[in-house]
Amino acid sequence: MPELRKDPIVGRWVIIATERALRPSDFAAQATPPRAGSCPFCPGGEEQTPLEILAGRTPSSPADGPGWTYRVVPNKFPALRIEGDLDSSGEGLFDRMNGVGAHEVIIESPDHAASLATMSVDEVADVLGAYRERVLDLRKDPRFAYVLVFKNHGEAAGASLEHPHSQLIATPIIPIMVHEELEGAADYYRRKERCVWCDILRQERRTPGRIIAERGGFVALAPYAPRFPCETWILPARHRAAFEESGIDDLRGLADLLGDFLRRMNRVLSQPAYNFVLHSSPFSEPDLAHFHWHLEIIPKLTRIAGFEWGSGFFINPVPPEAAAAALREEAG
Amino acid sequence: MPELRKDPIVGRWVIIATERALRPSDFAAQATPPRAGSCPFCPGGEEQTPLEILAGRTPSSPADGPGWTYRVVPNKFPALRIEGDLDSSGEGLFDRMNGVGAHEVIIESPDHAASLATMSVDEVADVLGAYRERVLDLRKDPRFAYVLVFKNHGEAAGASLEHPHSQLIATPIIPIMVHEELEGAADYYRRKERCVWCDILRQERRTPGRIIAERGGFVALAPYAPRFPCETWILPARHRAAFEESGIDDLRGLADLLGDFLRRMNRVLSQPAYNFVLHSSPFSEPDLAHFHWHLEIIPKLTRIAGFEWGSGFFINPVPPEAAAAALREEAG
Repeated sequence: MPELRKDPIVGRWVIIATERALRPSDFAAQATPPRAGSCPFCPGGEEQTPLEILAGRTPSSPADGPGWTYRVVPNKFPALRIEGDLDSSGEGLFDRMNGVGAHEVIIESPDHAASLATMSVDEVADVLGAYRERVLDLRKDPRFAYVLVFKNHGEAAGASLEHPHSQLIATPIIPIMVHEELEGAADYYRRKERCVWCDILRQERRTPGRIIAERGGFVALAPYAPRFPCETWILPARHRAAFEESGIDDLRGLADLLGDFLRRMNRVLSQPAYNFVLHSSPFSEPDLAHFHWHLEIIPKLTRIAGFEWGSGFFINPVPPEAAAAALREEAG
Repeated sequence: MPELRKDPIVGRWVIIATERALRPSDFAAQATPPRAGSCPFCPGGEEQTPLEILAGRTPSSPADGPGWTYRVVPNKFPALRIEGDLDSSGEGLFDRMNGVGAHEVIIESPDHAASLATMSVDEVADVLGAYRERVLDLRKDPRFAYVLVFKNHGEAAGASLEHPHSQLIATPIIPIMVHEELEGAADYYRRKERCVWCDILRQERRTPGRIIAERGGFVALAPYAPRFPCETWILPARHRAAFEESGIDDLRGLADLLGDFLRRMNRVLSQPAYNFVLHSSPFSEPDLAHFHWHLEIIPKLTRIAGFEWGSGFFINPVPPEAAAAALREEAG
């Protein structure tokens, strides 16, 4: 059983992933083994994945066979385990609980060579709709406090399979980075009685400096203090706390702008590896006036070194105004 | 002039490093250019670095020529600039200040092939003494609140030069990660009236589980909730808040254990790339009862992906007890 452990100084939880446990000596000889055989995410490879949880299918096609447009399956090597109780306990001054959670893979397309940048708006909206369905389902489970939807695209961004896919991990605690956003945004709201992201949108729209694109009710912008070159946030133009409350028009609007942004990014940065993460309000508070859901997109361009790891202080060699200008001028 | 910018939600500062400014398109064609010519950190290459700030030298050898055992120089491509005033200002709801700070390189040895793992205890103690001297000097500058000493060893850990060296960056603000440690440790102290690191040491020494080595007044241990496989902390066995208050015996004790640990690590993990960072108390509070200085060592073994970037939640495939056992059993 994997274990969740809390650092007693800063309160950061980590997952000690016993399901993937490695001995230290395993790293000595480590090199990525060539993947033998066919892609487990391609049509025809369905028996190589755990049984599907959700799929877009033609009415007649049976589960776990071909005939799907997207497919959600449990991760075969999950960081957390779906069965069991949390069983929180102490070890002297340390705190731990069982590594209970959900770890799922969203296979975005049957086409091995497709990507969110090349798929149609409807196809991308279906993938986003799959995120929504899974979040709505997982938030019924009283053991979970949060679900983080994320994507690793390209080997340099941590993807171990090439076939287009994203992932989600549901956890019994709110991740520290989301907790910090919630705290900071609540503090801003106490002082101003306004959502900080709504205020940022209002201010940024007065000058085009850091706005990259806007359409269908969504805005893509370079944040004022980005950690990474060309880091981009996409957020709904109107205040919305919970992604999973999105209607079909919202999903289509997001799909449209996300595809547009990824095509601009691919042209300006020559198809970089990238990550994205979806920050939405926690399960217990889907209607927060002070939290505004958003997608953070991070092209993998620079190497993170000791200074960043040790300080949380990032050195970014690309001013966000320059990043936004280059991305804005490129046609989506 | 580089700029310091603050994220209005979580309060994290970033450095927009105009001195190293890149256009987004610079990443498109990026590949590490082969380094032409001789190593700028080898004896004889002194004119390739800025003028030295400090060096260990034979009495007759002139500055900025050969004859040194270690050498401290300004970074030729500094993330922050030493000249100027902070000039804090606002841009609507955003906060910024000039990127004023010090960025220095500590060249650890004249021998291109040396490393902290192979140098003698005296040689390593001299390098640690150079850290101390620079911190003591920089803390006189009223513009600076903190100095972070760190090391990138190996290309995968962000080192751009092979010659053994470490770095330091002095900043006008306390880095968010150190701030979080200070806050968490102060909170613990308010409840218990004890230093949390002293309590951890007391608890961990009762069972050998996560202790790796102990000698000369210092302890190397695997933390209870490590973010990374084989992450290790070295800390003084007795409570000490400020690294720069160390005496020569302390520096020799640390040098001895650090070399011992690095040799164990190199054997178990086959000479990995690694980072280390020194967390000491801020300049304004060198005598804190609740902060205990420590060196965090992070072998670069895994890839950080979307989940970690988006959540601050790390997945570690090596239980710290297994890491400590492997490192403990290896002879230093």
